[in-house]
Amino acid sequence: TNAFKIATIPGDGIGREVVPEGMRVLEAVGRKFDIAFQFDEVDWSCDVFKKTGKMMPDDGLERFKQHDAVFLGAVGWPDVPDHVSLWGLLIPIRRTFHQYVNLRPCRLLKGTTSPLAGRGRADIDFYVVRENVEGEYSEAGGRLYRGMEDEIAIQEAIFTRRGVDRVMRYAFELARTRERKRVTSATKSNGIVHTMPFWDERFKAVKADYPDIETNQFHIDILCAHFVQHPDWFDVVVGSNLFGDILSDLGPAVAGSIGIAPSANINPEGDFPSMFEPVHGSAPDIAGQGIANPIGQIWSAAMMLDHLGHPQAAQAVIEAIETVIADTASRTKDMGGKANTKECGEAIASVI
Amino acid sequence: TNAFKIATIPGDGIGREVVPEGMRVLEAVGRKFDIAFQFDEVDWSCDVFKKTGKMMPDDGLERFKQHDAVFLGAVGWPDVPDHVSLWGLLIPIRRTFHQYVNLRPCRLLKGTTSPLAGRGRADIDFYVVRENVEGEYSEAGGRLYRGMEDEIAIQEAIFTRRGVDRVMRYAFELARTRERKRVTSATKSNGIVHTMPFWDERFKAVKADYPDIETNQFHIDILCAHFVQHPDWFDVVVGSNLFGDILSDLGPAVAGSIGIAPSANINPEGDFPSMFEPVHGSAPDIAGQGIANPIGQIWSAAMMLDHLGHPQAAQAVIEAIETVIADTASRTKDMGGKANTKECGEAIASVI
Ligand SMILES: CC(C)[C@H](C(=O)O)[C@@H](O)C(=O)O
Ligand SMILES: CC(C)[C@H](C(=O)O)[C@@H](O)C(=O)O
Repeated sequence: TNAFKIATIPGDGIGREVVPEGMRVLEAVGRKFDIAFQFDEVDWSCDVFKKTGKMMPDDGLERFKQHDAVFLGAVGWPDVPDHVSLWGLLIPIRRTFHQYVNLRPCRLLKGTTSPLAGRGRADIDFYVVRENVEGEYSEAGGRLYRGMEDEIAIQEAIFTRRGVDRVMRYAFELARTRERKRVTSATKSNGIVHTMPFWDERFKAVKADYPDIETNQFHIDILCAHFVQHPDWFDVVVGSNLFGDILSDLGPAVAGSIGIAPSANINPEGDFPSMFEPVHGSAPDIAGQGIANPIGQIWSAAMMLDHLGHPQAAQAVIEAIETVIADTASRTKDMGGKANTKECGEAIASVI
Repeated sequence: TNAFKIATIPGDGIGREVVPEGMRVLEAVGRKFDIAFQFDEVDWSCDVFKKTGKMMPDDGLERFKQHDAVFLGAVGWPDVPDHVSLWGLLIPIRRTFHQYVNLRPCRLLKGTTSPLAGRGRADIDFYVVRENVEGEYSEAGGRLYRGMEDEIAIQEAIFTRRGVDRVMRYAFELARTRERKRVTSATKSNGIVHTMPFWDERFKAVKADYPDIETNQFHIDILCAHFVQHPDWFDVVVGSNLFGDILSDLGPAVAGSIGIAPSANINPEGDFPSMFEPVHGSAPDIAGQGIANPIGQIWSAAMMLDHLGHPQAAQAVIEAIETVIADTASRTKDMGGKANTKECGEAIASVI
């Protein structure tokens, strides 16, 4: 297909500044590759919550069920608690739309540098595949003796065979499309004694179906150390919701791309829309100034194009980003340039 | 006091090769500073488990209750499951002896380098203070529908006010002894919605008692990224059992010292012995060859001396390690030298 209905949720803070640049680039690439986008924008955000008491209308997600994708900026603002903003908007989208894979590339774009000494593009090129709907992110749990000396807080992490197997299979399928064909499992079965041994058992069972893929596994503590010491060891890394969350910030950090990293919340079966969002948040410290770097949002647009079946258009976006990064004048301040958000977005669109 | 009873547990693999070097250095520093050590060694290990079915005798820990410290090498071997070896020896020591603080320095010794570009000794010098007896490391939980399609694994993390407050207080007290006087709290209250908001509440309550200490907090995902991007931001970092475990491998990794890092499992009240062990494990791949680097064990001995009230002796050990690192001939293979474990240990002892 060449015509797509995209739900856009700019959200809070710099989300509202970078989403328009992502749309600008999508329009530009659409003109070039003959792809039409219908953007349906909503104002769901902490601002709206403060007026209405809701992060989104009750039937909010119902409206977008038939859309092709969700394009999101950032959710969260200091004066609204996270359990309201994130658990009222971001997490429900991931769960309602069964986006059980969170995919994040960890690699250097041309013109960017890694904080690791002597490491460049050839050394750091892997994906983190994060379980995105169950595990440690669970509403099960609570408090005893609230507010008293003896206070206790309990959190349950819940892993299902179906939930674990499907994200692992996604990781193996992804590895099949890559050159090195290696899947690394993040575990902690020596310390987290119920769920992590289960995770290991399922990894063993699932990998039996992929004899063409090389595998290994590390405990999360040493795995984080290896990301720093040996980023070249990794190809596809699969982890639980929490471990994947940690690794998919650490991975872009070692690649020097944490400020511009994209992410895809994927429903692999395509029964529901997938969602694309930058890794950065709403950045209250710089919001409203028009100086935010839009590359994370634009790179997320490239991941969306890929997902929608237009890899060439995706590639054109990546190359345009790289061209603009090479040119100091079009970079934003965080990258040592002087361009504002819009100028940077326009530069990328015009390269396309 | 100048006379100490030390329980030594070489344990498995290279633990047996490096503990004697730690003892050698302790003897040497004891001669110089007039400190006497009585070492009471036990063979508790996976080997003994394979013969007796037990990692340690039932009254094992009872025997060491009155000792001044435990000096441990490494526990774990590939043919014994971790829940047997670690949960049968290492974890019970931490818990029975109320070693509720796990303390790990993250800094460069003279002569070592960080994998981070342009970062040296002045940029990386902080401590991770890890909660060591509760939280995510919990035996509460289990399975439903074991072995079936619908299989579910549940893990409960349990945090108590008493357990959280005391480790936080330890972190604040430690910060008071340091120049920068800053405590950073590792959280994830936006995703782990029961226990981490509780952790944050307690951090807020405890810090009120330390107005002289600067504080901040980061979610664990971005905190790991900051360790790589801004290690100079940190002074004392306090985290839960799991987050502290992750940060105290990542910290030494960014400092370039993961292979030689020490750790202290501390019972701050002194009601029970504290335990000192290197961060590295039993290293089955190189065990038995006599080539393991003993510096992690020896640095742990320095932490033990400090804990026992002999900071000058501790400092002498650190300086001797640094002198030996400066000399290629006395370094072990992993550090680019040719010395074996014993030669490296002897070199350090003779410098003292
Ligand atoms: C071996 C393992 C159980 C242990 C832990 O996770 O506590 C280790 O990683 C450590 O940090 O001492
Ligand atoms: C904002 C937060 C709840 C979220 C998460 O932990 O999932 C974010 O860190 C992410 O990775 O998308």
